[in-house]
Amino acid sequence: MSRGIKLYYDLMSQPSRALYIFLSTNKIPFERYPIALRKFEHHTKEYQKNVNRYGKVPCIAEQNFRLAESVAIYRYLCREYPIPRHWYPDDTVHQARIDEYLSWQHLNLRADISLYFFHVWLNPRLAKEENAYKTERLRLRLDGILNFFEQEFLCNGKNNFISGDSISIADLSAACEIEQAKVAGFDPCVGRPHLSNWLTSIRELTNPFYDDAHKYVYRLAPEHILTPSVLEDEMKTME
Amino acid sequence: MSRGIKLYYDLMSQPSRALYIFLSTNKIPFERYPIALRKFEHHTKEYQKNVNRYGKVPCIAEQNFRLAESVAIYRYLCREYPIPRHWYPDDTVHQARIDEYLSWQHLNLRADISLYFFHVWLNPRLAKEENAYKTERLRLRLDGILNFFEQEFLCNGKNNFISGDSISIADLSAACEIEQAKVAGFDPCVGRPHLSNWLTSIRELTNPFYDDAHKYVYRLAPEHILTPSVLEDEMKTME
Repeated sequence: MSRGIKLYYDLMSQPSRALYIFLSTNKIPFERYPIALRKFEHHTKEYQKNVNRYGKVPCIAEQNFRLAESVAIYRYLCREYPIPRHWYPDDTVHQARIDEYLSWQHLNLRADISLYFFHVWLNPRLAKEENAYKTERLRLRLDGILNFFEQEFLCNGKNNFISGDSISIADLSAACEIEQAKVAGFDPCVGRPHLSNWLTSIRELTNPFYDDAHKYVYRLAPEHILTPSVLEDEMKTME
Repeated sequence: MSRGIKLYYDLMSQPSRALYIFLSTNKIPFERYPIALRKFEHHTKEYQKNVNRYGKVPCIAEQNFRLAESVAIYRYLCREYPIPRHWYPDDTVHQARIDEYLSWQHLNLRADISLYFFHVWLNPRLAKEENAYKTERLRLRLDGILNFFEQEFLCNGKNNFISGDSISIADLSAACEIEQAKVAGFDPCVGRPHLSNWLTSIRELTNPFYDDAHKYVYRLAPEHILTPSVLEDEMKTME
């Protein structure tokens, strides 16, 4: 049964991609409303008045109900739709681990990747100069947070996923954040075999939607950063 | 029934205060483990190994189970303890509104208040110079985010609380963030009557624990920022 979800999103936004993949993988029908961040469509008065008061993506609308913030949207969808429970398990400890990651992410993994992405990739395109010292400082932070993620959340490979043996909303959200670094020419997988394996698993479990959501990331990232399988699939779409 | 919760906290940390008030108001017994941020006790290897891998406060431990991130901890406590439902209602729309605020908060209200607090109050105490231009820029951001909060979350007084008519974990969390600005000499209530009324309600509904948790905030904030009732109560404790 479709309840008429409208998704407002931009595939250049990490949480937009994650939500797009989540809805698609779980066969929840939705209407697509792309909002082009590069054209500042999220900053228009109309968008902020009629869709999302925060002026951000993603956002969903279901009749008169509108909800922003991907973490709040996942939880809402898991309550309202028949979604396999592994995405957000009923078990209290698993749920706590997922909540802990999703809360930690904002001012840590997400902040550090976004700062690097803005400084190295976006700012030069907005005619703001890149500062070599700042780039190096942000790169070190990014390295540190990814090492921490691999060590603490994936337990250096002992955990297949953040909350144990099954993929959850925490994994999908983290994967889409981490993919963003590739656009700025930073390969998160170098020297991190467990993170690399985990990223491959997320992709395999959610394809073809993962690749569809990441098509712009793949096009913008330098070739040497993409895995052979991604490159192969990308070439097929170009034939 | 006490299940033996240990709370690791520092009353100078906003989410520590909120959790301390939440546990106390809801009569959940807990053992107190103060961690002095000013002495960098959260940075010790022992704390990070045995208590909180993130090296932050607050954190709870219950036998071998440890959980960080106040938002994850609230949800865990609301599942595991007999807590009045208004704190995190079962109703899906109320729950979504609370989740939306708690997710939005990290990179908005919390980030802007923390940046101001660090620059204006903490840095000079760590012998880092305050920069007048930066102070002004951070003050404008702080003004903007508090106006947005009053307008959008309290609907300029039409909503008594963030999710409607009852206090929830979103309100308590937001109030403790906003109180932090007072330490840095910034009065969030000036020109914001609805925010001021809302803050008074949160205090009244959770006292005496609210004042107990804010005792250092009250001592550090300039007098002209504190409400007459807070000053009166503070003077009583000094008699």
